Amino acid sequence: MGMETVSRNKSFGGTQGVYRHQSSETGTEMTFSVFVPEHAPGAKLPVLWYLSGLTCTHANVTEKGEFRAACAEHGVIFVAPDTSPRGEEVPDDEGYDFGKGAGFYVDATEEPWATNFRMRSYIEKELSALVATEFPVDMERQGITGHSMGGHGALTIALRDPRRFRSVSAFSPIVSPLNCPWGDKALTGYVGADRAAWREYDACALIEDGARLPDLLVDQGTADGFLEEQLRTHLLAEACEKAGQPATIRMQEGYDHSYYFISTFMADHVAWHAERLKA
Amino acid sequence: MGMETVSRNKSFGGTQGVYRHQSSETGTEMTFSVFVPEHAPGAKLPVLWYLSGLTCTHANVTEKGEFRAACAEHGVIFVAPDTSPRGEEVPDDEGYDFGKGAGFYVDATEEPWATNFRMRSYIEKELSALVATEFPVDMERQGITGHSMGGHGALTIALRDPRRFRSVSAFSPIVSPLNCPWGDKALTGYVGADRAAWREYDACALIEDGARLPDLLVDQGTADGFLEEQLRTHLLAEACEKAGQPATIRMQEGYDHSYYFISTFMADHVAWHAERLKA
Repeated sequence: MGMETVSRNKSFGGTQGVYRHQSSETGTEMTFSVFVPEHAPGAKLPVLWYLSGLTCTHANVTEKGEFRAACAEHGVIFVAPDTSPRGEEVPDDEGYDFGKGAGFYVDATEEPWATNFRMRSYIEKELSALVATEFPVDMERQGITGHSMGGHGALTIALRDPRRFRSVSAFSPIVSPLNCPWGDKALTGYVGADRAAWREYDACALIEDGARLPDLLVDQGTADGFLEEQLRTHLLAEACEKAGQPATIRMQEGYDHSYYFISTFMADHVAWHAERLKA
Repeated sequence: MGMETVSRNKSFGGTQGVYRHQSSETGTEMTFSVFVPEHAPGAKLPVLWYLSGLTCTHANVTEKGEFRAACAEHGVIFVAPDTSPRGEEVPDDEGYDFGKGAGFYVDATEEPWATNFRMRSYIEKELSALVATEFPVDMERQGITGHSMGGHGALTIALRDPRRFRSVSAFSPIVSPLNCPWGDKALTGYVGADRAAWREYDACALIEDGARLPDLLVDQGTADGFLEEQLRTHLLAEACEKAGQPATIRMQEGYDHSYYFISTFMADHVAWHAERLKA
């Protein structure tokens, strides 16, 4: 496997790094960031995965997420992958909501996307294996979170493999690609017109179909311009209620979809994960 | 005067705004950001000015500075101006360290800079008056800080008018433009070859010439690539020592010149200012 260091900066007593590696899943170079708090030599730390939203790379949360103070305090490693394959040889779409920057954490089956757009397997398998090898992580103590499209990624990845994650949260997630324009465009494009095949990429459908987590935390701003048409948080609340899935879904008055919102509640989320990861 | 709102986002319970106005000092539109914490109706809050470094706009610290949590906790307004005039009609230099993005907080007397490069008067007078009018600030309780070129700006502005500021700090400041290549280029260009005229723009010279502050706080990373040639923190330590100027100058092991460093110590600085502003 192997990886190359793009940058390393001391921050909050630990190391914020950016790394690059050749991915066999996506067939491209992939860049990701990892914050490793100060720790005792030989110690293995719990790890929190953060999946980003549409148009983002690893850099958005790394620069604006304000997670390092809390991760340093709780001794949690923070991993932020990219949201899609990149490069001139990778197919793209004119929209911001499909193609590059919009991998939707699926394994595409439709052409021309199927070769490179394998973000599900990239996150679930390849990057996990790399992180386990290269960083002082305790892979028995993993949590996952994300924002918007990345909230969708976090919820669906965890619901499909609940034993891997001790803690799951999301900021303003897309809760049901089956029931919003972003999801409709992306899943039609990546996995085709058969909507039955979308259910493993839909948090609400996974819960309806019997998947369960010990609990989950969602923060959603009430002034988020995407709430009504795209995010539709109430569908997740209804699915959890109906299925008896424990969930803390907090509507945050006046907050929008930006990192000004995410950073406000980031320390809360890190603490929530740390409590479960260190229990 | 008047100003226009570019954006407003709820964050940490308060409002992070970006604003634009026509400056009579610089003859250009100027953009700045202000964070106003949640506060009781009618309350006036202390204000902390943050002056940015070379190449920066208001946006760098607004996005990466991680000041909002601490400002919300302590009830401090945070103002981040731009570092120079902008626009096609404004003269510029090929270097990153002179012209646009590099106003050095001076009033230029040399052509072609004298018309627009009036960042000293812009910060000291025009923007102060605008902020006093448009935001719920208690102008009797002002503090000032900044990074690199902005640390130079904060120290020199405060040393020239110590009664205005109850608290002064800096992150990796340029402590003596008289004694570094950045300062040599900028002050020669903006205020001319007579080095006696530079002394009011040099923190060490101001202290040598008798200016005093109640105290000051400086954090400087030991792994900062600019430390030895440009920042030369020891000159400030020596000037303070010689003059009996109280100063807390902390060399922070392993930190560089980036916002990964600034954000690490931002909460410390805000708390340090808040203690003095609210005393």
